[in-house]
Amino acid sequence: MTTFAPLQNDTFLRACLRQATPHTPLWLMRQAGRYLPEYRDTRAKAGSFMGLATNVDYATEVTLQPLDRYPLDAAILFSDILTIPDAMGLGLSFAMGEGPKFERTIRTEADLATLAVPDMDKLRYVFDAVTSIRRALNGRVPLIGFSGSPWTLACYMVEGGGSDDYRLVKTLMYQRPDLMHRLLAINADAVALYLRTQIEAGAQAVMVFDSWGGVLADGNFQDFSLAYTRRVLAQLPKEHNGQRIPHIVFTKGGGMWLEDMGTLDCDVLGMDWTVNLGKARALLGGAVGGPGKALQGNLDPNALFAQPEQVAAEAIRVLESFGKPHTDASTTGPTHIFNLGHGISQFTPPENVSALVEAVHSHSRKMRRAG
Amino acid sequence: MTTFAPLQNDTFLRACLRQATPHTPLWLMRQAGRYLPEYRDTRAKAGSFMGLATNVDYATEVTLQPLDRYPLDAAILFSDILTIPDAMGLGLSFAMGEGPKFERTIRTEADLATLAVPDMDKLRYVFDAVTSIRRALNGRVPLIGFSGSPWTLACYMVEGGGSDDYRLVKTLMYQRPDLMHRLLAINADAVALYLRTQIEAGAQAVMVFDSWGGVLADGNFQDFSLAYTRRVLAQLPKEHNGQRIPHIVFTKGGGMWLEDMGTLDCDVLGMDWTVNLGKARALLGGAVGGPGKALQGNLDPNALFAQPEQVAAEAIRVLESFGKPHTDASTTGPTHIFNLGHGISQFTPPENVSALVEAVHSHSRKMRRAG
Repeated sequence: MTTFAPLQNDTFLRACLRQATPHTPLWLMRQAGRYLPEYRDTRAKAGSFMGLATNVDYATEVTLQPLDRYPLDAAILFSDILTIPDAMGLGLSFAMGEGPKFERTIRTEADLATLAVPDMDKLRYVFDAVTSIRRALNGRVPLIGFSGSPWTLACYMVEGGGSDDYRLVKTLMYQRPDLMHRLLAINADAVALYLRTQIEAGAQAVMVFDSWGGVLADGNFQDFSLAYTRRVLAQLPKEHNGQRIPHIVFTKGGGMWLEDMGTLDCDVLGMDWTVNLGKARALLGGAVGGPGKALQGNLDPNALFAQPEQVAAEAIRVLESFGKPHTDASTTGPTHIFNLGHGISQFTPPENVSALVEAVHSHSRKMRRAG
Repeated sequence: MTTFAPLQNDTFLRACLRQATPHTPLWLMRQAGRYLPEYRDTRAKAGSFMGLATNVDYATEVTLQPLDRYPLDAAILFSDILTIPDAMGLGLSFAMGEGPKFERTIRTEADLATLAVPDMDKLRYVFDAVTSIRRALNGRVPLIGFSGSPWTLACYMVEGGGSDDYRLVKTLMYQRPDLMHRLLAINADAVALYLRTQIEAGAQAVMVFDSWGGVLADGNFQDFSLAYTRRVLAQLPKEHNGQRIPHIVFTKGGGMWLEDMGTLDCDVLGMDWTVNLGKARALLGGAVGGPGKALQGNLDPNALFAQPEQVAAEAIRVLESFGKPHTDASTTGPTHIFNLGHGISQFTPPENVSALVEAVHSHSRKMRRAG
């Protein structure tokens, strides 16, 4: 059994478990990314995005870059949500300046016949990166592992890349719901195994990114996305080596279905900027001493294009919209993990992230002191 | 005063005003469009999209095409949501196979200084088309006029075209809310005047398309989109020549803000497929004899890629999700206008639209007969 250095900043993990913290922890989706010049340097050395993601040293280097700049409260594995379909043999590539592309797609019964939960050895580079990053973090902050959701993976596997209308994946869903359910079941089992193996490799929390759940119709979201996220969660351990491993689910555009998401057996629900955090807290946050979910989110990433003092004001607006988190150290209660409502834009001025982090930490301490 | 033929099918207008109808009326956003071979023929004759939209005869021809194929319950003016910024002098064009593009954009105080509500003479081709279509309809079904919402127009005016991240328009909003409010006020007054003039030309209902309201953060939606839709509505006549003119507001991705939208002084609220119509009815539909909004929507346009019998089943699911509309001829109550949750796709098989229309009409009659 690998042993890792003890954790120095546990605010993120505590907030995930609805325990009181001295400030509101924050991290940013895609915090290791193109808006950082040092990331662009490593990316250039690696030659390609997959060259970066599959090299343990590079993946470790870029994961730690934002932490060297900003006092963020968590690290997230640098990887891509499409590693699983790639390991299934679909042939993932990223053309320069374009989105992901698969060589093979899953659109017919014959395509599906060849599909199975991949051998985790094909994803060894991910688990090695998890262990390497966890070591390099040396206990500074916890490490989050992640995967795309079964539905989100299916979108890319059917479309063969990004889409603006989801025509092909929805055609399959409406025409052949039986095939879609088979595809989603395979994906769910693959995602669960992938996240379990990340946990064994050192991930201290895991997050399911349901990036495209929000494009589904009411009813279909519950049947084709949520049901398979539930199937993933049912296969994840709640503890590893005596430590609780929080499970986070984020559905972009899922604000309409907060009550449905509240029935998931997970610790944290992420939400995008269209959600009113105060209303979400009333619905899902629970009472002090009672059950509930921690909430994660939800600043509009575009707010980071304003001036630094405006960025701080927007961050405060998000904190105040959630309201004062509970402060009772003896029990659990409503907690908030600050994040963006989606990945940070590559065009973000890095100094605005400093303003954001400073505002979240200082204002959230002030809120806790207030009566 | 122009007089037009009396209306033969008033189900759409009655349902807009929450009056009982023998079936649920339906029309489809973008029903005159590229999925119809006869549309593509007229488009080819016209040479360009704007050539089509600015020619009264062509605009009349394509508006009536879907009515000749399907027993739809309303016609909608064939035009584009960007005619207003074009009339403001921004120079609209459509490159083949691409989205709209403006020659000039509004990004600075100086850009804004030159901007004003345009002379309606520049939009004469639209009003002439309205009158021509109304005449050609000869009372078959009512004619809907429309405009983009102030916020949606602003998105295109700042971005200079479509966008996938709304970075420029949101940068302006977050950095210079004062300029954004000035831009939106001008747009609102222009939209109101434009719709008033369409009503005078013969439009029997008007609809505001807030296609991009759903990209705003909670709070910003209310301040930058909804407030200016309200400003438009405040300037619209409720009657013309003794006839009630229903006002429809549709915000794509606005399902999170149904309660806010319920405060608008309009007759009908449109919703996309992510909304549960039953819940929306409970919130907004009102009781028999009491106030409320008619609801319009909300089939996923991608459902039209299934087989005809599956299309019918999905249509029935939408009808049943709203539930049985009220049938009391002596008063008002909850009503539903069937539509898609967004424009029909150019790839839609035309025969699937037949299956849809047939299913909506027959099943909605059956629902009314049921106890």
